[in-house]
Amino acid sequence: MTFDVTILGCGAATPTTKHNPTAQVVNVHDKLFLVDCGEGTQIQLRKFKIKFQRINHIFISHLHGDHYLGLVGLISSFHLLGRKSELHVYGPADLQTLIDINLKLSDTYLNFPIVFHATNPKEQQILFEDGTLTIESLPLKHRIECTGFLFREKPFPLRVKKDKIKEYKLLPSHIIKLKKGEEAELENGKIISAEEACWPPIKSRAYAYCSDTAYKEDLIERVKEVDLLYHESTFLETELERAKVTFHSTAKQAAAIAQKAQVLELLLGHYSSRYKEEESFKREAEEIFPRVLLADEGLNFQVGEVIEIKD
Amino acid sequence: MTFDVTILGCGAATPTTKHNPTAQVVNVHDKLFLVDCGEGTQIQLRKFKIKFQRINHIFISHLHGDHYLGLVGLISSFHLLGRKSELHVYGPADLQTLIDINLKLSDTYLNFPIVFHATNPKEQQILFEDGTLTIESLPLKHRIECTGFLFREKPFPLRVKKDKIKEYKLLPSHIIKLKKGEEAELENGKIISAEEACWPPIKSRAYAYCSDTAYKEDLIERVKEVDLLYHESTFLETELERAKVTFHSTAKQAAAIAQKAQVLELLLGHYSSRYKEEESFKREAEEIFPRVLLADEGLNFQVGEVIEIKD
Repeated sequence: MTFDVTILGCGAATPTTKHNPTAQVVNVHDKLFLVDCGEGTQIQLRKFKIKFQRINHIFISHLHGDHYLGLVGLISSFHLLGRKSELHVYGPADLQTLIDINLKLSDTYLNFPIVFHATNPKEQQILFEDGTLTIESLPLKHRIECTGFLFREKPFPLRVKKDKIKEYKLLPSHIIKLKKGEEAELENGKIISAEEACWPPIKSRAYAYCSDTAYKEDLIERVKEVDLLYHESTFLETELERAKVTFHSTAKQAAAIAQKAQVLELLLGHYSSRYKEEESFKREAEEIFPRVLLADEGLNFQVGEVIEIKD
Repeated sequence: MTFDVTILGCGAATPTTKHNPTAQVVNVHDKLFLVDCGEGTQIQLRKFKIKFQRINHIFISHLHGDHYLGLVGLISSFHLLGRKSELHVYGPADLQTLIDINLKLSDTYLNFPIVFHATNPKEQQILFEDGTLTIESLPLKHRIECTGFLFREKPFPLRVKKDKIKEYKLLPSHIIKLKKGEEAELENGKIISAEEACWPPIKSRAYAYCSDTAYKEDLIERVKEVDLLYHESTFLETELERAKVTFHSTAKQAAAIAQKAQVLELLLGHYSSRYKEEESFKREAEEIFPRVLLADEGLNFQVGEVIEIKD
């Protein structure tokens, strides 16, 4: 039951030899989701040996170049490498125009369909849903329209203990009821409770991605108790004024959101190229919130606890 | 009197961890010209420590992504890093539309002017000219409109020998005449020939950049006797049919152009990602033309002979 995040780029607007522009791969139950796609993302995917034809859903937060300029190149490579399957792209409505004009001018007719889903920067909306996962947009506060993304596992069904199935000779009809948390009545009239026959429910996990944004109070409720919160920290508190003007956050502000939302862990990134090291971001955030992680290219972060289903 | 080419990327359409998409920096007399700007070019410029604010002229051959997708990111970084000076961009007319729409959607108002020069894919035209250099477009034959670029030093003036200036007590008026190759008459009536008083003229050098193109017979005359010819070799001769269909060249075809145009050296590049090594390109080309060089990221190639002005 994989749920993790691989950082492909965590620099801010001007890429350096140290940090690529923003991109992440979120792996939920072995489905790969690409979140933002700065210049050079396809090279990073290759470098970190992520099979990029397995990516069927790409989420773009906003139309600043460091978050989308790698998208057309990636789409082009998908095409050249023979992709046939649908690609879903979620982002600001104008992103579709950008994709279309680039493909038109390069006289490219894709071998696969792009299904475009325009995000609404004003409201939290479900963008993707399958049997085990929802992905929602998170309205952020930036110089231009921008959304984050919230990945949340759906509640897990209860799992009936194997020894109880044997002991009570449970039938499929009993098991269906127990999995839903209902009682099951055996043929001899005995009532079996879900509590007795099932393992305690596995806690669903959640990952929130918030880049780029100024400090935004209403985010706290939206990312309440997520396991991992990626919150941009372009600046340190010494550059608070600059953060305000550019609609970015400081490490301290990111930590304040994490602390108020009572998340499990905070992951910092989107570091301005003016800083030569990132430990000071961690130190600043840790004054407010204890569990701080630093994004770096190639690092992989587990979301919540590792779930290994045995029995 | 620098005249050299630094390779930032020499892969073909799908970038790999081995080869970046196309970009080169041509240094002529310490002026830097960027030729094509595939995705990741700004990172390559940093990696190879090329001061990119010194680039005032960018030439884009055509609108396939592997030749231009790094341009908007580079322009954006120029802006964020405080550039004020004019940037001249030469390329297909539609490139201007692409730049404009990207800047508009990211709500970016540049601190510096872009002067756009649309290339004409049908005719060889002078795009840039200063006291010592001309840069011309070269019509190529590709799936979409595409031009190469020809960098040529202007003829050098004659240089009057210092010992002759002393011996004949030459006046500025004499020197001006001699530099033009004319005779000078001394006050005592003695006639001094340019041949006697001057060093033999330095040979002007030329670099031709031809990517992407099918084999094109009329290129031979256009790149006649250049010192260095960069000619794409996307494929080996075993893939000749594929080269034809995709309007690319084989190493053998590139060598045929070099041989017929009697150039000094041939530089191969734009290798398809299907090949794991490039020595076979060199071997194939050397069957026809002796002086073959292989492009690779970070390599620097001298154009013609090194000119060191002494005396």
